[in-house]
Amino acid sequence: MPATLFSDRLAETARSVEACLDGLLAANPAPGEIARPARLREAMRYALLGGGKRLRPALTREVARLFGRGDEGVTRAGAAIECLHGYSLVHDDLPAMDDDDLRRGRPTVHKAFDEATAILAGDALQTLAFDILADPATDADATIRAELVLGLARASGLGGMAGGQMLDLEAERAAPGEDGILVLQAMKTGALIRFSCEAGAILGGADAEARARIRRYGEIVGLAFQLADDLLDVTATPEAMGKATAKDAGRGKATLVSLYGIAATRARLDALVAEAEALLAPFGPAAATLADAARFVALRQS
Amino acid sequence: MPATLFSDRLAETARSVEACLDGLLAANPAPGEIARPARLREAMRYALLGGGKRLRPALTREVARLFGRGDEGVTRAGAAIECLHGYSLVHDDLPAMDDDDLRRGRPTVHKAFDEATAILAGDALQTLAFDILADPATDADATIRAELVLGLARASGLGGMAGGQMLDLEAERAAPGEDGILVLQAMKTGALIRFSCEAGAILGGADAEARARIRRYGEIVGLAFQLADDLLDVTATPEAMGKATAKDAGRGKATLVSLYGIAATRARLDALVAEAEALLAPFGPAAATLADAARFVALRQS
Repeated sequence: MPATLFSDRLAETARSVEACLDGLLAANPAPGEIARPARLREAMRYALLGGGKRLRPALTREVARLFGRGDEGVTRAGAAIECLHGYSLVHDDLPAMDDDDLRRGRPTVHKAFDEATAILAGDALQTLAFDILADPATDADATIRAELVLGLARASGLGGMAGGQMLDLEAERAAPGEDGILVLQAMKTGALIRFSCEAGAILGGADAEARARIRRYGEIVGLAFQLADDLLDVTATPEAMGKATAKDAGRGKATLVSLYGIAATRARLDALVAEAEALLAPFGPAAATLADAARFVALRQS
Repeated sequence: MPATLFSDRLAETARSVEACLDGLLAANPAPGEIARPARLREAMRYALLGGGKRLRPALTREVARLFGRGDEGVTRAGAAIECLHGYSLVHDDLPAMDDDDLRRGRPTVHKAFDEATAILAGDALQTLAFDILADPATDADATIRAELVLGLARASGLGGMAGGQMLDLEAERAAPGEDGILVLQAMKTGALIRFSCEAGAILGGADAEARARIRRYGEIVGLAFQLADDLLDVTATPEAMGKATAKDAGRGKATLVSLYGIAATRARLDALVAEAEALLAPFGPAAATLADAARFVALRQS
């Protein structure tokens, strides 16, 4: 298969996920809602619809496709994951957190709106993620919906993404060692990427063995994502990234790249790609796009 | 039935909900979680376990009891609602929002910890609410769990509580009229109180007619709660409330009390209690505690 395959799927996913998010953030209240305040809705749209690679929903889609599922429910699950991811970016950028002014080449939400609106937009985006997954439109089978909600919650709360951001803030005061950084990153970025993959297996009705294999694949992709991200913080320009770079070194923050060095980091990324390929081998040629996804994540330039 | 009945149930609920929350916020990660950072967990415990009347879980319990259900699942659903409520208090108290230093007679979370930790504790408490509801321990029936998640999401996001807080912030700049205040309050405080009642009906398997009735009862209790709250902001001392009072007038903020006056507000509260009693009449004497709950909420002194 050609090396561009996953990036084609990314573009396809971006279109369908953005159309889905656009519909979910329409002006009319959903059943059970009272009204949708315009300013908050605009801030949520600004946070969600301003680009982004849609890597996570593309992983969900490719895994679901592997198990023969490729409908609107998969797009909705991907949209829910983007809401959760978007919420975390909005809150991480806040002055009390990472204090970033730029995200995807545009002012961050608290800069474009104000701090209170950014806090609420993040809050409401988190809620929307669970709303989407629990809605019968995502899957007629309530067991699948409840499983998706629980999986996302475990990936995002105290023992996942929010906990990882807490560890990241603490890491600026007391630098963790390699093991500490690995736990931090597994929580802060790894857990949601892993769940993005697992969600496709849940939606596709994968058996326990296949699901465990996809879960491990998701862990590897998450690790590769973060290693590549740390590498880009050292090697890329702010223009290529659409956000500030050299932030980790500027804050004296230890990353795996600062521990391993650039060459050894690249070697580790290659090893992770090989591990992903080996994990996918039992699925045969149908998993070629997922193997390409691992390469895409590990070798990306922005 | 004696007038103290609902307050007795409140005390009972507080004990069971706090034991449940204590267990949910233990040090050991839940399945699917990676680790639980101590500082974040402590901030979540501080926010959740520092008192509070547990009014919302007590409503859930009394409604569930009306439909013959009174088990651990009901306590868990109440604990989930307290997590959602607790998250909203932590975020509402933030400097960028209402900037409050005192809550339930103690320093607010961002004062006792710091702002970043308070943002993350609120975020993780919101996640925990959905986590609890989606977990099979709350109900073996996934349809009920998914319905609870969706109901809570609709009550808490853009078209509910978060949206209501947005309107409340905007109300400080441009005072809304009576209709605007009613929408604001229905979203900011009403939606979660209404859902607290409806959750009991969902868990108890109430039919559509009974559920609609309970939903309307919940709306009335929510309205009474807010009217009583606005009244107490004018008439009570900070010591009795465990938080600052006279805040609305101090900010020149319009409330229903400032529109109606104190005497007319008291008359409206009486009318709401009568309406709640009429709604509950078809359920017979089994609903006496719920009628008492409406009186308790409307006539409370703190």
